[in-house]
Amino acid sequence: MSFNLTILGTGSATPVLTRNPTAHFLQIEQDGYLIDCGEGTQNQLLRYKLRPTRLKYIFITHLHGDHYFGLIGLISTLNMHRRVDDLWIFGPKGLAEIITIQLKYSGAWLNFKLHFIETDTKNSYQLFENEHITVTTIPLIHRVECCGFLFREKPHKHKIIKETMPNDLTIEQIKLLKDGKNILNEDGSIKYDYRIYTTPSSKSKSYAFCSDTLYHEPIIDIIKNVNFLYHEATFLNDLESRAFQTNHSTAKQAGQIARKANVGKLLIGHFSSRYKDLSPLLEEVRSEFMNSELAEEGMFFEI
Amino acid sequence: MSFNLTILGTGSATPVLTRNPTAHFLQIEQDGYLIDCGEGTQNQLLRYKLRPTRLKYIFITHLHGDHYFGLIGLISTLNMHRRVDDLWIFGPKGLAEIITIQLKYSGAWLNFKLHFIETDTKNSYQLFENEHITVTTIPLIHRVECCGFLFREKPHKHKIIKETMPNDLTIEQIKLLKDGKNILNEDGSIKYDYRIYTTPSSKSKSYAFCSDTLYHEPIIDIIKNVNFLYHEATFLNDLESRAFQTNHSTAKQAGQIARKANVGKLLIGHFSSRYKDLSPLLEEVRSEFMNSELAEEGMFFEI
Repeated sequence: MSFNLTILGTGSATPVLTRNPTAHFLQIEQDGYLIDCGEGTQNQLLRYKLRPTRLKYIFITHLHGDHYFGLIGLISTLNMHRRVDDLWIFGPKGLAEIITIQLKYSGAWLNFKLHFIETDTKNSYQLFENEHITVTTIPLIHRVECCGFLFREKPHKHKIIKETMPNDLTIEQIKLLKDGKNILNEDGSIKYDYRIYTTPSSKSKSYAFCSDTLYHEPIIDIIKNVNFLYHEATFLNDLESRAFQTNHSTAKQAGQIARKANVGKLLIGHFSSRYKDLSPLLEEVRSEFMNSELAEEGMFFEI
Repeated sequence: MSFNLTILGTGSATPVLTRNPTAHFLQIEQDGYLIDCGEGTQNQLLRYKLRPTRLKYIFITHLHGDHYFGLIGLISTLNMHRRVDDLWIFGPKGLAEIITIQLKYSGAWLNFKLHFIETDTKNSYQLFENEHITVTTIPLIHRVECCGFLFREKPHKHKIIKETMPNDLTIEQIKLLKDGKNILNEDGSIKYDYRIYTTPSSKSKSYAFCSDTLYHEPIIDIIKNVNFLYHEATFLNDLESRAFQTNHSTAKQAGQIARKANVGKLLIGHFSSRYKDLSPLLEEVRSEFMNSELAEEGMFFEI
């Protein structure tokens, strides 16, 4: 299954000309998922030639402007491009009200339907599923209600080994084997063991997005063993107390979370405008978790 | 009096990477006046090194996103920069509500006071004055409530000619002469003619901003003889019917308004995203009014 990530913004709240505010674009099969949408995100979609017709789902972590001020502009532009497909927007209480009031005063009727789904940022739960993936919330600790999102492919089917397949199986029984379940006799004993008649499925791909947050160990259980983790790293660790005051994390702390959660790869971003040269952040995060990278705008990853 | 204009955005509703949406920055003496504030305007202020501490007044013509979606981001950033000075925002009904609700959900208290002044877009009237200028509204015809703004220096004082000055004048009487008023005898006849004792003041500078609008001749009387006119020119005249449908103007029409209003100079902008090469718009507008220019981002004018 194709599962690709493009980084659209790596900055934090104070604007700098060299970084855009937070936005990540996931493409899973034919569907586009936008995660956060800071001011200027629609231009970043244009710049990296991400077709807005593919965009189906938008996930907003919290209502600080560097994570959503670009949303109303993007919606307006989709409408000018005569979009007709529904668009689903997941975000905290208040987002629907903010968008709706702006649409009202613009005097424009949308050609497409907007669905707002309000997130409960306090508890981890399955927020969304479609045929390809599930999305689970990751409660974060910030100055306003905030949650991250875990995108996980649904378990793949096991593959049938044609050579060994008994020829008395019904279609329903074959489905059971593909789902990794045994076919049982009436007394409950195993008649056909799926491990004999199928090969294991490949591991489901997963992407966890955590921004903005204080260092917060309870997320570790939720993101355990994900392929790819994005975690904010606003500061270097010499500003740990500043990170604490502002409910943000340091590069070192992001690395600790990645190590403790045993993730495949870590990407850090949301860099404070004070850092012109980001290499000390990379050095610091790698001291905790070697397979780490700095987010850069336009970066593309096949997960 | 210093009276300078910087162009921050020249595009229209559909975003293109080569143009930002509408925003003009006027600097009159020490005060900054921002006119319209499309998405990304705060980055344009950064790019052209316009110090946000100078910004005192913001004028929003109407509630289409390409004219105000950047406002909430700018306000948030001013707050992060620990602004304490009051900020005055003039705009149509709805703007205060839109900004206030976003501030509410951001959980942030502003360190400075925001004053919202609702514009009546149907009538031309003096909206604002301070020691340097007056601002008059220019009702425009668009799909939503919309008005332009005429910025005009207050009349300059006449200069006293010391050599001819009678020595029996009170301070109040000297002020009268400087204001271009005669000093009268008790019977109403002229005692001292200001034209003898003073030299005329230089002409007051003026800047009229008209965006977005249908071709609309009633504005001519309001902007008559201004030094500098900005008028939108979304289309070439071969798309006049499209301009009419969407309540916009063509370059030819902008030139006609400038000619009929006898302005000093015309600047056009708000170009449709369909035009990569803008030279046909310049050619067209100059066929009507020779002293015309295309707005470009970063352009600076001393008016």
